[in-house]
Amino acid sequence: MSEKTVKLLNPHLETAPSDYLYHLDINVANTGDTTELQHKFGDVKFICVGGTGSRMRQLALYLRDVLGVQESGDPVDLCERGQRYAMYKVGPVLCVSHGIGSASFSVVLHELLKLVKYARCQEPVILRIGTCGGLGVPPGTVVATKNAFNGLLRNEHEIAILGQRVVRPAQFSEDVNKDVIAFGVDANDGFQTISANTMGTDCFYEGQGRIDGAICEYTEKDKMDFLQKCHDLGIRNIEMEASMFASVTQKVGVKAGDVCVTLIDRLKGDQVSITMDQKHEFEQRPFLVVGRYIMKLLQQ
Amino acid sequence: MSEKTVKLLNPHLETAPSDYLYHLDINVANTGDTTELQHKFGDVKFICVGGTGSRMRQLALYLRDVLGVQESGDPVDLCERGQRYAMYKVGPVLCVSHGIGSASFSVVLHELLKLVKYARCQEPVILRIGTCGGLGVPPGTVVATKNAFNGLLRNEHEIAILGQRVVRPAQFSEDVNKDVIAFGVDANDGFQTISANTMGTDCFYEGQGRIDGAICEYTEKDKMDFLQKCHDLGIRNIEMEASMFASVTQKVGVKAGDVCVTLIDRLKGDQVSITMDQKHEFEQRPFLVVGRYIMKLLQQ
Repeated sequence: MSEKTVKLLNPHLETAPSDYLYHLDINVANTGDTTELQHKFGDVKFICVGGTGSRMRQLALYLRDVLGVQESGDPVDLCERGQRYAMYKVGPVLCVSHGIGSASFSVVLHELLKLVKYARCQEPVILRIGTCGGLGVPPGTVVATKNAFNGLLRNEHEIAILGQRVVRPAQFSEDVNKDVIAFGVDANDGFQTISANTMGTDCFYEGQGRIDGAICEYTEKDKMDFLQKCHDLGIRNIEMEASMFASVTQKVGVKAGDVCVTLIDRLKGDQVSITMDQKHEFEQRPFLVVGRYIMKLLQQ
Repeated sequence: MSEKTVKLLNPHLETAPSDYLYHLDINVANTGDTTELQHKFGDVKFICVGGTGSRMRQLALYLRDVLGVQESGDPVDLCERGQRYAMYKVGPVLCVSHGIGSASFSVVLHELLKLVKYARCQEPVILRIGTCGGLGVPPGTVVATKNAFNGLLRNEHEIAILGQRVVRPAQFSEDVNKDVIAFGVDANDGFQTISANTMGTDCFYEGQGRIDGAICEYTEKDKMDFLQKCHDLGIRNIEMEASMFASVTQKVGVKAGDVCVTLIDRLKGDQVSITMDQKHEFEQRPFLVVGRYIMKLLQQ
């Protein structure tokens, strides 16, 4: 097997005769002969993931144009039968939805990693394209994540395994972060794209210090002190996936990046107040940045 | 305000002039006069939540029949514009999707709790209707959760708030659990419905001791020891939401229950191997149980 294929950290996969990627509804009938999967997915170089199926469908249509992929008609959802996640393929790019939060994303991430292993993809890069809250940057700013912090303000991810707390580092590939900024930005964009730290939390309300959830046992001042602490750590955006995403991909040695657009400046409030039209325009911004990055890397 | 309406644990909500339930795309323009919301949602007595929008749509159609609600045509998704969660209303029942995992569910749970508060619903009950792995029970068994354990095997839920670890108890209402068993079961069902403990984890693979994820650093024996430990604690099913769900609803004093059907017996393997037809049949079982429970309570 080529050195550029993906090696996972699970010896059990080497001896299992078959595998069923349950949530993707992809059946690997014979792990010893994955010719069919290689034929279907072997050319994949980039996996773009994001929260909703509809946004991933839009991204697929956008990338068709940018990459000049000759396809017409509606993009086909390759995981429709699984009913949990949507997957579209545009040339060498998969666009896959992951829902909200680390738990939801981790399910599909484990299965995507197994997919690229079985399909013998060559050094695939996984890019999350999301929306998020911002910290001290104007709404509409695109943030490419440098280091991922969890809700405890640590640059790591915590997970319970076999009943025990396991802590893992949460660093994204420096290469990807650097290249996204180098190749993804255009001086005429009309918005800022920055490299900064990101906090990923397990709760949108209490976990991100909002005072407008169903439960809030702290004051506005406590909240601002917390957000200031985040800001002091170089955190410029807050979402719900970064630390899990960085830790899992770092652990298995697959390059990854997180490129999100801020919809609000949390130093100025908790409620998202941009219009739906603005939101849709903002959501396109990471498409532009990631589209250019992918184009550049495909040309190298 | 009537004593039967929902009081939340957030003093800030009492002084906020407006609120926007962002992920549901429901705008509460004036929190001092919620007449319109009361008109639309004030009769809600039960909120059924589950993973996928398609299953919640099926449930809405099923409950139309069971409750004899005179409506025809496709159920309308009241949150379609939000693009994250689906919501259908059938008489006094809301059917709402929550995605996968505690983080995804907690977003919509906070917003649903605010919705029933603003709409002045009378003692609403929230019921999760899900699928799960089983422990020592045949696939197709329906489990109504007694106590919710987290992935650390503790009957509590942990969450990071303002950068600090916060631990909360995770008990479901005894009433709901007792009534689901008393009113939901029919001797001719052809499947078992039991009351037992549930473990909710933040990861489907490593978090539930599976050996078929992208990462696995333990042996088959370690896994079986862990699952046996779970079994010894009275845990008969494993999913990804129970401890968060129990802790948030317990904290705000809203009655709740978790009613899930097992798709696999984890003491016998990791891979879900039932057919899609069996899966769809199994998914109907909690519908039957919860449908009867709701009917009975509405008649009281």
